[in-house]
Amino acid sequence: MRELELIQDLDALLAGLAPRVVIGVGDDAAVVRTGGAYAVTSVDTMLDGVHFRCGQLSWAEIGHRALAGALSDLAAMGAGGGEIYLALGLPEGTVRSDCVELIGAAQDLAIRNGMTIAGGDITRAPALSVSFTVIGYVDDPGCLAGRAGARPGDLVGVTGPLGGPAAGLAVLEGRVRLPERVAEALRRSYARPEPRLAAGRALAEAGATAMIDLSDGLATDAGHIGRASRVCLELSLSRLPLADGLEAAAGQLGRPPAELAAIGGEDYELCACVPPSARAVLEAAVASADPSVRMTWIGRVIQGSPGASFQDAARRLEGYEHVL
Amino acid sequence: MRELELIQDLDALLAGLAPRVVIGVGDDAAVVRTGGAYAVTSVDTMLDGVHFRCGQLSWAEIGHRALAGALSDLAAMGAGGGEIYLALGLPEGTVRSDCVELIGAAQDLAIRNGMTIAGGDITRAPALSVSFTVIGYVDDPGCLAGRAGARPGDLVGVTGPLGGPAAGLAVLEGRVRLPERVAEALRRSYARPEPRLAAGRALAEAGATAMIDLSDGLATDAGHIGRASRVCLELSLSRLPLADGLEAAAGQLGRPPAELAAIGGEDYELCACVPPSARAVLEAAVASADPSVRMTWIGRVIQGSPGASFQDAARRLEGYEHVL
Repeated sequence: MRELELIQDLDALLAGLAPRVVIGVGDDAAVVRTGGAYAVTSVDTMLDGVHFRCGQLSWAEIGHRALAGALSDLAAMGAGGGEIYLALGLPEGTVRSDCVELIGAAQDLAIRNGMTIAGGDITRAPALSVSFTVIGYVDDPGCLAGRAGARPGDLVGVTGPLGGPAAGLAVLEGRVRLPERVAEALRRSYARPEPRLAAGRALAEAGATAMIDLSDGLATDAGHIGRASRVCLELSLSRLPLADGLEAAAGQLGRPPAELAAIGGEDYELCACVPPSARAVLEAAVASADPSVRMTWIGRVIQGSPGASFQDAARRLEGYEHVL
Repeated sequence: MRELELIQDLDALLAGLAPRVVIGVGDDAAVVRTGGAYAVTSVDTMLDGVHFRCGQLSWAEIGHRALAGALSDLAAMGAGGGEIYLALGLPEGTVRSDCVELIGAAQDLAIRNGMTIAGGDITRAPALSVSFTVIGYVDDPGCLAGRAGARPGDLVGVTGPLGGPAAGLAVLEGRVRLPERVAEALRRSYARPEPRLAAGRALAEAGATAMIDLSDGLATDAGHIGRASRVCLELSLSRLPLADGLEAAAGQLGRPPAELAAIGGEDYELCACVPPSARAVLEAAVASADPSVRMTWIGRVIQGSPGASFQDAARRLEGYEHVL
């Protein structure tokens, strides 16, 4: 495959989609009209052998999942819109149509969320590497939700069922066997996570005091909010919303399902802290922004050792160390 | 090395440097006040074994060189300022102090050019991978110089001597032996290229019609301008400014020095097309913006087969295919 041919494919794939883009793919840099006074930017990289395995996912799923991971960080701020830049590392022998499939799936996800792939860089690499820089814009940074604003008394909620992707990975790796329909739903939750952009914006606007997306697992990520806010998120395993099929999968893995939900990771749901007074308004705002999302309240913020803990856990739960 | 310790190092290294940064390293995404109505964005990745070899460069040089390559794309638009995001892939066994050295050198280069490293992502990887997304801002995209504006009659100029990095790499690989002072200067031109941000802004503002940075080599990169502008850049080998020591290095490599200057690549100088009437104003603007830069006029734009050609070359010159 020659770079020039691939770039022509991508020019065609990415052309004519965003009125804000003055210069897109094909020059030294992209030029776009910014959509607000403040840029909200995140970078996320997924690598074959580290964050996924090529044989387990299609190229379209790899592209979707890598971009979903990056967009999930914007969702966790309450930001959205804007542009996407891709740094793609391709191993020797990569086929052009696979690349187009990967970028096409990312493009579909981008369009559905009102975003544009405006540029990037493609290089040879020892393993498939997909790195997205995603940029949203806001006029008022005060309407964003960082990690540091949680206050004692806040409720802690999550936007959807947990543990599905961890069980889906176990399905892919042949560690559990389930009826086909259940297995496929779990596999899909791992391969095609949906970043909660609309719900994230609704939560931030309706008064969430702190927010994070669940990539390393609830136990670890809730701990990040706790440490940044110097409070303790006291959670309850028994209240965690479990993905369909998680119980059966967890049984075969010999683990309590709620533990898997707490530490499995890669859920890409949001965990938000919310003043109790804002609860009703916020539930309505989320339901209106994305009818597929339902908040589940899983604990509360207390004064105490900064971090997160489960009041009903038999042992200390920690997520996996995601890198290094 | 644990991620958390490294992130603490980086928090300390990158803290408190940019009043525009509302939220920097350590949250889901960075939040920065944009510096203009249009964002100019480029992504550039350098990988061990593809774009450099770890044993040949220090970690500081790897960080500097990777960021210089990315910033050079902004320079080639006439943009600057703004933010930098880093996606870093670290092989097993990477030492924390090496990482800090790499990012510290990038930070030095960023600060010297009025830019800020505002965030990024660190992950395990099979080989050291350094990917920078760089963002500048302008209020008027009309004052940028893309690749597509060159017109017949324009002069073609470059911002500095060529061939030094190609000869420097030959020194590093032991393919040429030169007196220490000369060898070190060539090696440094490869290891520590200076992105021409100030000169690029001056050129774009003073009326350059098209511009590109020389990463793949003048022959290839000038061809990009020619094809994008549907004109021919007719260049002259005998007019190319040669790096000090290039003649001796080329002699040992058995190649004409000007050929090496035309196809060696990784010069990170700028190639600009300029109406003859703007020449004097533009030379003065560049000299005032960066006294270390002197324009050399190496050819002109003519109607003809889109691309670039050397009127005095014995054979067709093409740069190396940079990727894939």
